[in-house]
Amino acid sequence: MKTIRTIAELRRELEGEVEVGLVPTMGALHDGHRSLFRAAREENNLVVASLFVNPAQFDQAADLAAYPRDEDADARVAGECGVDILFAPAGDELYPPGFGTWVDVEDAGAEGASRPGHFRGVATVCVKLFGIVRPVRAYFGQKDAQQAVVVRKLVRDLNLDVHVRVLPTVRDADGLALSSRNVRLDAAERATALALPRALARGREAYAGGGDAVAAARSSLNGLTPDYVEIVELDDVTILASAVRIGDIRLIDNVILKGDLS
Amino acid sequence: MKTIRTIAELRRELEGEVEVGLVPTMGALHDGHRSLFRAAREENNLVVASLFVNPAQFDQAADLAAYPRDEDADARVAGECGVDILFAPAGDELYPPGFGTWVDVEDAGAEGASRPGHFRGVATVCVKLFGIVRPVRAYFGQKDAQQAVVVRKLVRDLNLDVHVRVLPTVRDADGLALSSRNVRLDAAERATALALPRALARGREAYAGGGDAVAAARSSLNGLTPDYVEIVELDDVTILASAVRIGDIRLIDNVILKGDLS
Repeated sequence: MKTIRTIAELRRELEGEVEVGLVPTMGALHDGHRSLFRAAREENNLVVASLFVNPAQFDQAADLAAYPRDEDADARVAGECGVDILFAPAGDELYPPGFGTWVDVEDAGAEGASRPGHFRGVATVCVKLFGIVRPVRAYFGQKDAQQAVVVRKLVRDLNLDVHVRVLPTVRDADGLALSSRNVRLDAAERATALALPRALARGREAYAGGGDAVAAARSSLNGLTPDYVEIVELDDVTILASAVRIGDIRLIDNVILKGDLS
Repeated sequence: MKTIRTIAELRRELEGEVEVGLVPTMGALHDGHRSLFRAAREENNLVVASLFVNPAQFDQAADLAAYPRDEDADARVAGECGVDILFAPAGDELYPPGFGTWVDVEDAGAEGASRPGHFRGVATVCVKLFGIVRPVRAYFGQKDAQQAVVVRKLVRDLNLDVHVRVLPTVRDADGLALSSRNVRLDAAERATALALPRALARGREAYAGGGDAVAAARSSLNGLTPDYVEIVELDDVTILASAVRIGDIRLIDNVILKGDLS
């Protein structure tokens, strides 16, 4: 695996490649990312993973500062999963002085309302990465379901020629969805956090029985106050999504109510 | 020349093409467009002209309604100038129901401040056309200098792999810059409009003599009240630009103060 830091070098490296898969990441790679890398490896001739903690999508400076970074460990994970090129640019390679073009996706749902500017940052960096890499397929995790909705919407609206693949959430044995932020939870916080996947599972059961998924999930959060609990439509798929805060750590999760992402 | 109305058909037609030039137009084609078509014809293997009166870039409904439309005449002009494909989609082909992704370029200058939302519409439709056509080169006229600045900026910021070519303004014998809106001027209005190129020429003379280009142009507008007179930096080129209104017709023009666009 080759690590590349500049757009110009990456473009040179990709010249003539006809089937490139892109996995955009912010590093702190875990089994969720591994499943994306492996799918990309199976489905494409060449696999690029980007490793960039995108400042434009953080609405809280403290969250950005606390985001875990370990490039050596990430490079090992990516290499083991068959990634060909790790694109790890510095901040000013993607946002040079004078940068001032933003992609805005309307109606980004509760997660958008809850984190002002977040999806503008996500949308802008995705359009940039698609412009640099020109992938045939790009890979996202279902855990960030509303991000996937936003990316699918901008791809359709801006007529970008890339297929957005969304793969199932990977969970630990206790049910917690894998997230780069989980490493910041202590044992007590982690026990508290388990209310989130359990509440979503209750919501899914209620929905299957013809009941109110949102109300059932809300009443099962075990004292956690959610940023939101909402139903999200992702093309043909209906999802129940929620975000909670445990101390200063914000966790999101969701379950499928109807349809199939694959 | 082939006329194509859908994105899907255009994509099929362009599959495998490696060097496509794109000339985005809103029709009502004149000699200014002809110069763009001819440059595109010389420099590319295949030339696509788009013909789309982009509702998203009109800040005034009356201006949109009054915009001249004559597809048969436009198709003749494009065909004579060597255009291979005329892409003339209906409005909802580019803006289907549920459309909601916008490209915003900050600091779009006086023309941006003067027409709220205008450059958002221009930027969005250009990103869409670049996504559909994937041109190597796209062609714009210097008459719309601030539009060219916005397009160059979004191409750089979003890492789109397209070369933005800007060609010199084409003028009638009396000095008026060619514009699709000129057909709406009666003889008296046209005589009044000539103050615009003359004032810009006075500004350029003043600048060459070390004087104040903006003040010289302002004082030579012969009673016309401009929306703005301003100096615009277009990469290495410095331009003196102005917009005036004659009745309900808005005209823009500019001259180069320093540098070379070609």
